[in-house]
Amino acid sequence: MTLALALAEAAELVQAGFDDLLEARAGVPVRDAMLYAVRGGKRLRGFLVLESARLHGVGPERAIHAALAVEALHAYSLVHDDLPCMDDDDLRRGQPTVHKVWDEATAVLAGDALQTFAFECLTHTDLGSPEIRIDLVASLSRASGIDGMVLGQAQDMAAESAGLTPNVASVTELQANKTGALIRWSAEAGPRLAAADPSALSAYASALGLAFQIADDILDVEGDPETAGKRLRKDAGAGKATFVGLLGLDGAKTRAADLVEEACAALAPYGADGEILREAAHFAISRQS
Amino acid sequence: MTLALALAEAAELVQAGFDDLLEARAGVPVRDAMLYAVRGGKRLRGFLVLESARLHGVGPERAIHAALAVEALHAYSLVHDDLPCMDDDDLRRGQPTVHKVWDEATAVLAGDALQTFAFECLTHTDLGSPEIRIDLVASLSRASGIDGMVLGQAQDMAAESAGLTPNVASVTELQANKTGALIRWSAEAGPRLAAADPSALSAYASALGLAFQIADDILDVEGDPETAGKRLRKDAGAGKATFVGLLGLDGAKTRAADLVEEACAALAPYGADGEILREAAHFAISRQS
Repeated sequence: MTLALALAEAAELVQAGFDDLLEARAGVPVRDAMLYAVRGGKRLRGFLVLESARLHGVGPERAIHAALAVEALHAYSLVHDDLPCMDDDDLRRGQPTVHKVWDEATAVLAGDALQTFAFECLTHTDLGSPEIRIDLVASLSRASGIDGMVLGQAQDMAAESAGLTPNVASVTELQANKTGALIRWSAEAGPRLAAADPSALSAYASALGLAFQIADDILDVEGDPETAGKRLRKDAGAGKATFVGLLGLDGAKTRAADLVEEACAALAPYGADGEILREAAHFAISRQS
Repeated sequence: MTLALALAEAAELVQAGFDDLLEARAGVPVRDAMLYAVRGGKRLRGFLVLESARLHGVGPERAIHAALAVEALHAYSLVHDDLPCMDDDDLRRGQPTVHKVWDEATAVLAGDALQTFAFECLTHTDLGSPEIRIDLVASLSRASGIDGMVLGQAQDMAAESAGLTPNVASVTELQANKTGALIRWSAEAGPRLAAADPSALSAYASALGLAFQIADDILDVEGDPETAGKRLRKDAGAGKATFVGLLGLDGAKTRAADLVEEACAALAPYGADGEILREAAHFAISRQS
């Protein structure tokens, strides 16, 4: 199994899961907008769930609803982030954003329902015992709420409006919440499904998440909007603090490469079995979208 | 114990719970907006959780996190409903709405984080065994997502834009989802906490929820905006299908009174112990706010 194959397999399983679960629901525009919002994307989070599960002897037939949960959670955050009152983006994953295809009200509701759907997914009995399922709910709620992803968003908004001078530490903390928390949850899902110790994968994902974000900042400066499938060069325009701004382009690339080494080192307990996750860490900083 | 006292006690316990849990979180504006959004209100849903729990021998020290969950969920729905792209309301519970005090982005995020917080509340170990907690998560996610509350919202929006001729059956179904599902979940929470049969309280709450909505429609026509603490006379202006519009004012009052009788009859298995819930059903159609 190579990384490309594992990512493709994860993407296929996740898409089939969404189609199965969502197409059975009431045929209202909000349902269609939910299905639209969960299409495409790299499925990095879903892949991390399925791959960390495999490392702990848990197959995709048991882990899939955890992968769907985190992808639905991630999709909701993108739909709301793209709203005119937030980042005001017209393009996402190479397609018009939900509020452009439908309208803002539908985008708000579809995002809301995707968050609900994420928690509903975690109650599926295939995932395991009630202990395991409630542990997944508890950890995902902490990772995505006011102590995690939303806190990161709030810190981002506060930093822009308060005119504080950002530094590497403050931007690192912000990103550890804004994008890191969900990536960490995804990689910890495997051990959680097996009631095993998540600390090695937690360390892996913390380094991976930060490397991923630095790569995003680099992509914003160097990338091709058509390949990336979203608007680029927006950070400088918005006066956002980025790792490129703080460390310079070369400094940011060095930091990202160091983090990838750190992520790979954290996988030592898994030996050769951790190869696909090592490849994923390298992919995180070499991707074009 | 009278209804007034039980409502006041529920309101106090719920507010103390929110203060405890939210004030400990990071001090960002979104956190302040969350605290602001959960203040005030009738706490009908929190009361139904605590009272249905009492009927099943479960005290408030065990049930409180279920009451907080449904009140947080309800608060999130109000914050998002009030957004300019939704109902565009400036006033809620007698105070400026969240997007008026802060801004739209903060209102979107605060609503999002309140939903997450609701599910986090349901993982609290005081609620009972993992089986009981995951049952609460599963039922609340069904009640509030694309098969419940959000479906009702979507049906409401679709009815307005499609220009379909509404009838009593379609408006009843819409409202059973939009407001009924959360009220039903609240009344079923007690039996769920006790791993008991929720069917009597489910029947009670279905009738109560519809009576409550008809009373809202009547209040929109007859109420005093200052006492109600929100904008009134907006349904007719928006061309919304209401029970008053479909049944006439007298017809709506008769239907609401019939539903209150139906709700009370469903409480028969609880005998005299169901008195406060009977009072609550009568209160639902006599309230001024």
